[in-house]
Amino acid sequence: MYPESMVRLVEAFAKMPGVGSRTAERYAFYVLGASHEEVETLSKLILKVKESTHYCKDCFSLSEPPLCHICSDPARDHSLICVVQDPRDIVAIEKAGDYQGIYHVLLGALSPLEGVGPKDLKIKELMERLKKGGVKEVILGTSSDTEGDATALYLLKHIKPLKIKVTRIAHGVPVGSALEFVDKATLSRAMRQRQEV
Amino acid sequence: MYPESMVRLVEAFAKMPGVGSRTAERYAFYVLGASHEEVETLSKLILKVKESTHYCKDCFSLSEPPLCHICSDPARDHSLICVVQDPRDIVAIEKAGDYQGIYHVLLGALSPLEGVGPKDLKIKELMERLKKGGVKEVILGTSSDTEGDATALYLLKHIKPLKIKVTRIAHGVPVGSALEFVDKATLSRAMRQRQEV
Repeated sequence: MYPESMVRLVEAFAKMPGVGSRTAERYAFYVLGASHEEVETLSKLILKVKESTHYCKDCFSLSEPPLCHICSDPARDHSLICVVQDPRDIVAIEKAGDYQGIYHVLLGALSPLEGVGPKDLKIKELMERLKKGGVKEVILGTSSDTEGDATALYLLKHIKPLKIKVTRIAHGVPVGSALEFVDKATLSRAMRQRQEV
Repeated sequence: MYPESMVRLVEAFAKMPGVGSRTAERYAFYVLGASHEEVETLSKLILKVKESTHYCKDCFSLSEPPLCHICSDPARDHSLICVVQDPRDIVAIEKAGDYQGIYHVLLGALSPLEGVGPKDLKIKELMERLKKGGVKEVILGTSSDTEGDATALYLLKHIKPLKIKVTRIAHGVPVGSALEFVDKATLSRAMRQRQEV
């Protein structure tokens, strides 16, 4: 029904996560209706991001230079490493604003069901960073689901022998939530991990 | 937080309809994770669609050649023109599969509130097509909302003097719907426009 390049663009958009053929069609019509500058910018940036964005050689967060802006910042506390699953997790923690240490991105979590083992994650690289010395504390910031918990447990077992302090970020009732709206699993964990005041 | 080109790509994606910054971020991560071929294809097609897709010179539907595949098809009935608001409407009618005539896209509907007058639509071009002769019937396929109805009325007033038969697509209960789920406006119109059987 549509010109061939339009059909192919709809197909290409439909490969993006959560985009069905109707939404892809809307995006294609946006391209048709947008200004030439906007379209050219979008087209160029897609290529540029793919070509110029790499993983930081130390922490595996996203970076254009080989070393990311956090790893290369001497003002950050390099003796404190927070281990996360995804570069997006760093953005969330940085937005919170008070963490002063550095990071290590695993690029996933252990998941036997999906065939993700320790070798598929940046665990060997983490251990190498730790063995170099200078790190006083590792904060396990993996998700609080089965995979994240399993990954945290695996890391704990391997980091403990290095005599480095290992902590896990706190799980509990989100700030601002009324107890009645908090799910069972969170509430039960919040009760178990209650703290003396 | 993200490399600069990544931030700009998120901003570019966020200009697409219905895309907020979170969704735009997901799309940017899709670009990062997709294969080089996929990314290059997407980037090229965006430019290609913008550059190569134009409006058909006769009916203003989307087309790569100057005349669209429907207008240039001698097997279609050129004495029957269905007037619609948007190129997407043509796709919907073509999918239904039994319309054999040709089309005319207005590229909008009259809307005094949004400042869309007759001169902003392809009405003059429609009248010129009709004045050339050979057209026996015009089907008004504009939407059944206020703007679509106003546009249909405006066209009716201007086409009638040309002694061409003017019809409006039927509005009523959608096929397959139980009456109890049909909205008031549709049901009242369906009752008024009941047909003898």
